[in-house]
Amino acid sequence: MLRDPSVKYRPFPQVDISDRTWPSKTITRAPRWLSTDMRDGNQALIDPMNAEKKQRFFDLLVKIGIKEIEVGFPSAGATEFDFIRSLVDRGAIPDDVMPQVLTQARADLIEKTFDSLDGAKQAVVHVYNAVSPAWRRIVFGLERPEIKGIAETAAKLLRDQAARRPNTDWRFEYSPETFSTAELDFSVECCEAVMDILQPTPDRPLILNLPATVEAASPNVYADQIEWFGRNISRRDSVIISVHPHNDRGTGVAAAELSIMAGADRVEGCLFGNGERTGNVDLVTLALNMYTQGVDPELDFSDINEVVQTVEYCNQIPVHPRHPYAGELVFTAFSGSHQDAIKKGFAAQAARNDQMWDVPYLPIDPADIGCSYEAVIRVNSQSGKGGVAWILEQDKGLKLPKRLQADFSRHVQEMADQTSRELNAADIWSAFQTAYHLNSPQPLRLIDYQEGAVTGGSRHFVGRISLDGQEHTVSGRGNGLMSSVLDGLREGVGIDLEIADYQEHAIGHGSDVQAAAYVECKGADGATWFGVGIDADVATASVKALLSAATSARAAAQARAKAPEPVQA
Amino acid sequence: MLRDPSVKYRPFPQVDISDRTWPSKTITRAPRWLSTDMRDGNQALIDPMNAEKKQRFFDLLVKIGIKEIEVGFPSAGATEFDFIRSLVDRGAIPDDVMPQVLTQARADLIEKTFDSLDGAKQAVVHVYNAVSPAWRRIVFGLERPEIKGIAETAAKLLRDQAARRPNTDWRFEYSPETFSTAELDFSVECCEAVMDILQPTPDRPLILNLPATVEAASPNVYADQIEWFGRNISRRDSVIISVHPHNDRGTGVAAAELSIMAGADRVEGCLFGNGERTGNVDLVTLALNMYTQGVDPELDFSDINEVVQTVEYCNQIPVHPRHPYAGELVFTAFSGSHQDAIKKGFAAQAARNDQMWDVPYLPIDPADIGCSYEAVIRVNSQSGKGGVAWILEQDKGLKLPKRLQADFSRHVQEMADQTSRELNAADIWSAFQTAYHLNSPQPLRLIDYQEGAVTGGSRHFVGRISLDGQEHTVSGRGNGLMSSVLDGLREGVGIDLEIADYQEHAIGHGSDVQAAAYVECKGADGATWFGVGIDADVATASVKALLSAATSARAAAQARAKAPEPVQA
Repeated sequence: MLRDPSVKYRPFPQVDISDRTWPSKTITRAPRWLSTDMRDGNQALIDPMNAEKKQRFFDLLVKIGIKEIEVGFPSAGATEFDFIRSLVDRGAIPDDVMPQVLTQARADLIEKTFDSLDGAKQAVVHVYNAVSPAWRRIVFGLERPEIKGIAETAAKLLRDQAARRPNTDWRFEYSPETFSTAELDFSVECCEAVMDILQPTPDRPLILNLPATVEAASPNVYADQIEWFGRNISRRDSVIISVHPHNDRGTGVAAAELSIMAGADRVEGCLFGNGERTGNVDLVTLALNMYTQGVDPELDFSDINEVVQTVEYCNQIPVHPRHPYAGELVFTAFSGSHQDAIKKGFAAQAARNDQMWDVPYLPIDPADIGCSYEAVIRVNSQSGKGGVAWILEQDKGLKLPKRLQADFSRHVQEMADQTSRELNAADIWSAFQTAYHLNSPQPLRLIDYQEGAVTGGSRHFVGRISLDGQEHTVSGRGNGLMSSVLDGLREGVGIDLEIADYQEHAIGHGSDVQAAAYVECKGADGATWFGVGIDADVATASVKALLSAATSARAAAQARAKAPEPVQA
Repeated sequence: MLRDPSVKYRPFPQVDISDRTWPSKTITRAPRWLSTDMRDGNQALIDPMNAEKKQRFFDLLVKIGIKEIEVGFPSAGATEFDFIRSLVDRGAIPDDVMPQVLTQARADLIEKTFDSLDGAKQAVVHVYNAVSPAWRRIVFGLERPEIKGIAETAAKLLRDQAARRPNTDWRFEYSPETFSTAELDFSVECCEAVMDILQPTPDRPLILNLPATVEAASPNVYADQIEWFGRNISRRDSVIISVHPHNDRGTGVAAAELSIMAGADRVEGCLFGNGERTGNVDLVTLALNMYTQGVDPELDFSDINEVVQTVEYCNQIPVHPRHPYAGELVFTAFSGSHQDAIKKGFAAQAARNDQMWDVPYLPIDPADIGCSYEAVIRVNSQSGKGGVAWILEQDKGLKLPKRLQADFSRHVQEMADQTSRELNAADIWSAFQTAYHLNSPQPLRLIDYQEGAVTGGSRHFVGRISLDGQEHTVSGRGNGLMSSVLDGLREGVGIDLEIADYQEHAIGHGSDVQAAAYVECKGADGATWFGVGIDADVATASVKALLSAATSARAAAQARAKAPEPVQA
């Protein structure tokens, strides 16, 4: 890279339009969408689609509701031509779908292009020629009048070919290619010349497509260009202004949005932004951006994963994990504070009466595009207690009390720091079972018990427990089941705990229902021990939770006892 | 997806700033760059970086010239804290690099955060609290005054901690998090409250970072917000306005660019746009966008591939093949017309005297970021003759005449249509050798020859050739070598050809130099045959080229002879 890039690169010139109106506009309805996946997208693939893939892509586009499809570049080769011809011959184009084909402005190619769709109910023939000074000078060695002449010749060929082929309702599109890097007045001049020949009307408008063939400026400049063009083209009611943004500066989506605000009626792009080099503008993102503003995009991405899979299969190019709306990581929160906010957002959403979507960090309800909430929260070493609790609730139906969440998150944090990888739901469940001694063989385990009321309103508990494989009978009294169990543990095996807190809830419904009990106990030394018990019986679950806490307390006491005495100096 | 999304989603409200000035501005100098790869990026990884990867990432950031690096979230866990601490203890932070750490607005976390960088030469402590109505209501259950109070408490803690730790030059950053979805006046109110406590000066300014925590509107709205904020904040000369765009709508790069035009001084982002969900804004694209406008980004991506490789290693997330500037396909043209234009662009660039970059389809000189021209043109079934010729010239030094290009492109087109995959340079070279009989064993091969002048100014040629394995001696006369060879072929083996065109050029330099000869011949039946000969000797190369054309002519004649006679009806 040059230290002073100004010796090699120029700033893009501003458009003279200080009274622009687009920055105060919003997008209030969907533009016409043209998918050029099978043309601009296809020609940029390492391995272009064969007929089978093209048919799959075409079917997908129809399914999601695209009504204008550029099906190929028929004069580019036999694969292209034959597939397009077969769409017509097989009657594979729905009546409400407009197929479109691209051709260069040459007589033999235009004729072949008409051949490819002749007999279709309707079709757009799209002709282009590059108009910018760089192309005129470097590629063609031609002056403005000759370039305009190419456009005029092409328009006459379109008009005459169409007149000779009455079985199809032919419509036309003209692209002054390299529009965004050309003089605006010259682009208008070429478009006017084409209109003079094709004589569009409001009923049979001409599509004027204004490509950012290479994205060369910030997106506001493209919007300025589109607003300028809309003001200066004649017969505005007989013209569909179409934009065709590329993404060389990573601002293709913005360029399309700002240019719609600036008056564009139609957008040409590809699903997930395939296309030459950095790609065409991404129609999926554009449509879902509209959707999240309450505007119907008139496209259906209810099953975004199916769309991703088909496009990846056909293009053999992956959708990036961070691709808006569609990437595998975009509904994922690893950070603890994010997870906590999302969890609260879902709860608030469920509690409210209105339908309005308002969940932190999620600009769209993942369910609207067929993604499940379960994918939202994942756990790594950056995660806090919220995410872990969420996963246990989603996967196991456990609703951990706040303080137990905090206790457990320390276990998870240690594990995440040690493994330095994402923890999946199985890792977390395994850590939970270990932390609260839910795995067999448990060092301290309930075999069975009886309990009942005794005189004076207190309760009596007699249980058989297994302690390090030895069976013990313990019995105790208290003002309820839990206190009598603790009394028994104190007397029978010397574990001295008090209840600090207790919660219990049902997991599931019907005959499979189980109870989860959570206890927080204090030891005689003031230490806190949490316990968890799960059982079909609510009372047994709480006894098990106490034994779980007692197991932790006893393990800590044993560890202390084993620690070496400080050596006297 | 809902047919009427307005029942669930609201349009984002406009900012009241009809006299906005940013749409008429351009970017004329680099902002301050802050990389949050090791914090916002890292926390969004499936597998967060370990210490080794963090060190590699840190070294890369320093190497490309990033001067402000958010090295982590020290209170989030032991991995984070220990690495940051070790940067200081090892003296691993260059003097001109400002490390930054993020903390929530809580006393214990702030103290731990100061611990992590205490003793560094300089450091930024970055504190945040979310201020938007959704967060206030859903996440915190707090009103505006309490939220502002959190910011004030945090600012006091920053001030007091810094006063107690004189070994480091502490600077501060405050983020009213969720700025882009909050009321602008309330964000200003919180920032003013923080400034009242921290008392920034022009010499010791406060960074006010205004995150689009979730991108929720088109990028012009964010620019409006930034311009509004800049007009309404006090002590503007003591404030660094920083933006932190996310990319949920795919317009993060645009949001950053428009907000720089709107007055932002500083950008927080990640390399290639890593970060939560859809990621943070991509610093690489921003910097290279500036570079292509002649503005020095003050970052060095001279070896973009090394940057890609290191980031992919550390993040374990690929850079997409169509990622601006860095993706493997972005300097690639498969389409024939694109290839042709690029080829002409390179030629025009080489022929011009000025340095200004102007090559069709290439917004940047790939060489400026360490990419080679050879990658620019690749061949599939959509490619024309230009790309094929380019590859043969790049790889083999062969400069095919126009008409030979056209002849050979038909061979390539057939191969591409048949294989339906990309053809690599080896495929093309192999096809070239087959088409023009450069492979052994050649059916018609030169063994050796003698030639010389005879009386009357004509030349005499005597050669030994191998024809289908049989050795023949042929001799002929003509007004030059080539015509005497053709005379010999006509007389000796019955192949009747005339020269239509001939070109020859050297390949390489010095002692390795070879000659490539191209001939275009006409048969007695008017058919055209192209021949290619390569040899260390210029004369031998042209003889070989003639034998190459003769081989094709003879093969066609044999095929005709073998075709079955039409059956009489």
